[in-house]
Amino acid sequence: MSTHIAGVGSTRYDAFPESSSRELFAEAAAEAFQDSGVAPADLDAVYVGNFVADLVEDQGHVGPLLADHVGAREAASISVESACASGGATFRQAVQAVESGAADAVLAGGVEQLSVADAEHVTDALANAADDVYENEQGLTFPGIYALLARQYMHTYGATREDLAAVSVKNHENAVENPLAQFRKAVPMDEVLASRPIATPLRLYDACPISDGASVAIVVGEAFAADHDLDTSVTVLGTGQSSDALALQDRAALDRLPAAERAAERAYADAGVEPDGVDVAEVHDCFTIAEVLALEALGFYERGEGTRGAVEGETAVDGSLPVNTSGGLIGKGHPVGATGVGQLVELTKQLEGRHPNQVDGAETALAHNVGGSGASTTVTVLGGV
Amino acid sequence: MSTHIAGVGSTRYDAFPESSSRELFAEAAAEAFQDSGVAPADLDAVYVGNFVADLVEDQGHVGPLLADHVGAREAASISVESACASGGATFRQAVQAVESGAADAVLAGGVEQLSVADAEHVTDALANAADDVYENEQGLTFPGIYALLARQYMHTYGATREDLAAVSVKNHENAVENPLAQFRKAVPMDEVLASRPIATPLRLYDACPISDGASVAIVVGEAFAADHDLDTSVTVLGTGQSSDALALQDRAALDRLPAAERAAERAYADAGVEPDGVDVAEVHDCFTIAEVLALEALGFYERGEGTRGAVEGETAVDGSLPVNTSGGLIGKGHPVGATGVGQLVELTKQLEGRHPNQVDGAETALAHNVGGSGASTTVTVLGGV
Repeated sequence: MSTHIAGVGSTRYDAFPESSSRELFAEAAAEAFQDSGVAPADLDAVYVGNFVADLVEDQGHVGPLLADHVGAREAASISVESACASGGATFRQAVQAVESGAADAVLAGGVEQLSVADAEHVTDALANAADDVYENEQGLTFPGIYALLARQYMHTYGATREDLAAVSVKNHENAVENPLAQFRKAVPMDEVLASRPIATPLRLYDACPISDGASVAIVVGEAFAADHDLDTSVTVLGTGQSSDALALQDRAALDRLPAAERAAERAYADAGVEPDGVDVAEVHDCFTIAEVLALEALGFYERGEGTRGAVEGETAVDGSLPVNTSGGLIGKGHPVGATGVGQLVELTKQLEGRHPNQVDGAETALAHNVGGSGASTTVTVLGGV
Repeated sequence: MSTHIAGVGSTRYDAFPESSSRELFAEAAAEAFQDSGVAPADLDAVYVGNFVADLVEDQGHVGPLLADHVGAREAASISVESACASGGATFRQAVQAVESGAADAVLAGGVEQLSVADAEHVTDALANAADDVYENEQGLTFPGIYALLARQYMHTYGATREDLAAVSVKNHENAVENPLAQFRKAVPMDEVLASRPIATPLRLYDACPISDGASVAIVVGEAFAADHDLDTSVTVLGTGQSSDALALQDRAALDRLPAAERAAERAYADAGVEPDGVDVAEVHDCFTIAEVLALEALGFYERGEGTRGAVEGETAVDGSLPVNTSGGLIGKGHPVGATGVGQLVELTKQLEGRHPNQVDGAETALAHNVGGSGASTTVTVLGGV
């Protein structure tokens, strides 16, 4: 029995201070219902990826709230939280619900609304993804955490500022053509290198923005799809997930992402796919260094060689392995709980041949979603026809 | 392929202002590892039910944090939130993980630490379970919400204050013998009736306390259990889950729990069990009225007759259907994210014949866990041998 993404929907990612989570989520869901042909009443479950609605909107318990707001008041509903990997983790739970036989059709969505709060409060809220005792209370912020990873990587492998900046240039370039993206403006190398320092060696354009948005995928089983005459051209070939110590101090190394290595290994085994069988990927580039580390953890490059992807053009839309054709978190935006599902929205469009940065002949796609500085990772492999 | 609870563990429920969530969770897990014979390294996943660690301890992303703290750093990990039903929902996701084939052994735990914050902050945090727009901002608190349900029920069926108080008397009585319970002191009817009003018609002893605590169940598949020579005497016969509108104003009725009716129907069908086949139950008695509504929603009593359970002694430990032999949320306590798992800890002990309020011949057990005022509900049916 195979499991499929019957359809997808998404808001644009941007600051929407006039819109609540419930409005954003309903907008994405409405598009997914139309795209899939699945009606709200057909859903057995609504799974919601969200990180900080309670801290920002004073609203927890968003599972039933959002199930109701998409017209599925009686569905089973939960909220899944794995910090910035909440979306990927939510999707994986939806796949398990279908594959266990507990559900035939599940709405896997994610949403985040951050712009209603001021920047300092949002920064505090997002810091909840790190270890409060050993990181936050010691003054270690997320830009600082990723700066440490970048420093270590540069030290180990001799990578340069230009190597990192090339990721930003590529992802901004890809975002220009994506109507869902927050930043649709190319940023040349010299602008990335001259942008404001945020935590040396990282500068402003090495980082993703703060975004609002919602993304939805409708996950269905083979039999349900057949009964309802749904499009089954996008198949969930495999998923994998792993964890690591939350605090950097407890990690085995700072120049690699062991949880991503394990999640990828499991996903590849589950899917029966090798890294060189992947045609297009969305990876979690919250900072430029994160994309480099991801490329290596996912087996696309040997350790120390991940910078080659953007520098040599190999991960460009017309390269040998296009990565973040959406613009990634850096160019498209990062509405935390939505991001992992948004990656699957992008890849579904690639596999259906309707992406604004279409990769010719894309038949196998991979999504990689990270929580915190690498403590949570999900990897999803999708197949098209 | 059957799914089993291989072992359980739990902290006592009480105020533990010196203990963090990570300490409480690790304590419960250590007992569950010993009870089950499953080692941390054997776990494929650690699923954590938690409601407000981010609001109370400035700590989100507790999935990998707590996986690491129980010795399973590399497991897949998530946090599941369905307000006060977080524990039940977490357990159901663990069952689905096993039944989908994605995992052989999953730690399903729940934890809440509330006593480190002051009472006003905790009340604000817990209010996140209600609809912020249509309830909280209008001044409707949780005691007020349940008071409205009690009022409507008393109006519809002519129930009395004494009818509700009988639930409190029974559950406090049961808690006396339970070493895990927060209140181990019998409270006679006249004390319940004379206790401080909190939201008329509800008084202090109609309500559960604020509690800290953690509970853990180890969920395994049949093949894993056989390979590891584990006890499979407790079987997950079936689960069900449903939702309802978050805000009372959108509910079809206030004198019943439609989401619980649907969750129960699904769980009974999944388990192949009828209500009269249940030998012992733990139901979500956050307020006395909630137990009465639960008994009816679960099919144990006709509508309007649920008060008979406690009043006539039918739901006492030696009654025809013992309910909340643990003391329930009212007597045992209610560490939000842990509560639903704690119910399964209690029922596992009943099915294994080692409960402090043992029910003779208990072979089929049911747990009912509610989020908010009924918007989230999980029902789990367990079988013993």
